Amino acid sequence: MVTLVGGGPGDPGLLTVKGSQALADADVVVVDRLAPLAVLDGLREGVEIIDVSKIPRGRFTPQEEINDLLVSRARQGRAVARLKGGDPFVFGRGMEEVIACTQAGVRVEVIPGVSSAIAAPELAGIPLTHRGISQGFTVVSGHAAPGDPRSTLDWDALARGGTTLVVLMGVENLGPIVDALVVAGLDLDTPLACVMDGGLPSQKAVLTSLSKVAGSGPPPELHSPAVIVIGAVAAFVAV
Amino acid sequence: MVTLVGGGPGDPGLLTVKGSQALADADVVVVDRLAPLAVLDGLREGVEIIDVSKIPRGRFTPQEEINDLLVSRARQGRAVARLKGGDPFVFGRGMEEVIACTQAGVRVEVIPGVSSAIAAPELAGIPLTHRGISQGFTVVSGHAAPGDPRSTLDWDALARGGTTLVVLMGVENLGPIVDALVVAGLDLDTPLACVMDGGLPSQKAVLTSLSKVAGSGPPPELHSPAVIVIGAVAAFVAV
Repeated sequence: MVTLVGGGPGDPGLLTVKGSQALADADVVVVDRLAPLAVLDGLREGVEIIDVSKIPRGRFTPQEEINDLLVSRARQGRAVARLKGGDPFVFGRGMEEVIACTQAGVRVEVIPGVSSAIAAPELAGIPLTHRGISQGFTVVSGHAAPGDPRSTLDWDALARGGTTLVVLMGVENLGPIVDALVVAGLDLDTPLACVMDGGLPSQKAVLTSLSKVAGSGPPPELHSPAVIVIGAVAAFVAV
Repeated sequence: MVTLVGGGPGDPGLLTVKGSQALADADVVVVDRLAPLAVLDGLREGVEIIDVSKIPRGRFTPQEEINDLLVSRARQGRAVARLKGGDPFVFGRGMEEVIACTQAGVRVEVIPGVSSAIAAPELAGIPLTHRGISQGFTVVSGHAAPGDPRSTLDWDALARGGTTLVVLMGVENLGPIVDALVVAGLDLDTPLACVMDGGLPSQKAVLTSLSKVAGSGPPPELHSPAVIVIGAVAAFVAV
């Protein structure tokens, strides 16, 4: 049995009751670098903790190796908890692990978690929706820049949808992303907030705007992991 | 002191550890009809539970009355927990309550929750993002139909953004929403899944498609509360 556990944005208190129980019951806990490692402190003695960011080949352990690890440990008859940051189905590659387990005949359960896409802005004072200001939000990966052939997003349409934009993994490509939104006609005065280390004691937020980023580049404080919020609600950020 | 608690989609196990603690510490708990009422069972004796969907004027208690209630109870020196379904800042009017408390000089904290927008699909087997299929998702309110002057969304752009679409409060307007997406050019074969009562024992899901809804109307099983997912990932739904 494998249980995918959404670990939330970093604060151990934002783990769910059910996720917490799954970790307490686990014989093996498989984590990576974005999981809220503080929750591991409370585990019972003897539990095997595998940090897949530390096994050979470093941070970029191929997903297939992680899948194989989950399946092989489960086949030993051990209860495996796969702890992920945020929610397992929001850029967590959780579905790939579910499919791998299912194809191997291993029972798998998914416990949703608090998504950093929503909670990091929230903990910094930003509501992604707000009456009279925003009737929706769009969460995208900024891993592939606009125009990159690997991107399946239409940034022109994203700029015009009328929703708050939330960009994850967008630190490297913030410049090209802002340029694409400006070209698409998004108001230059649109507030842009960056929340770094959301949910951790080191959390820090900064407020800028499309025009400032387009003119002077990303804020100097910007670093990964960050959640970038673009839209009128970003102005609510507490800095 | 007022604490806004994200109660998650309905399963009491999907409440956060911190949210659970805030409820246990509360002197007053203010809930409404979408809050996960099962979590109230574990509260200590003597706690005052106020269901704002049951006070005079029924389900549609004006937000101002709720704000006043939070402020007045907090001013009595009591610890007030405001329990909401899902996450307080996703269509929860949470920010309005935060602003009301702050303006009244009442200290307020927000504890993020598991959003039904992500978790209801997830519990039905749908990942909102999936490698090679979806690099993002858009969550909107379907409360105002496309073309309604109260809507600030551009449904034409939403159809072309390339993200998975998630519609909350869209049961009444599913027909016009699908029509708008089809007119905007979204593929008629696009899968559309509806997850009703996500996270509750009564959870039920149904799979259809844009063309079927456009031709024959919404699935007969559709009822509120439902999370509607439109996009290739909807085909993962377990029905």
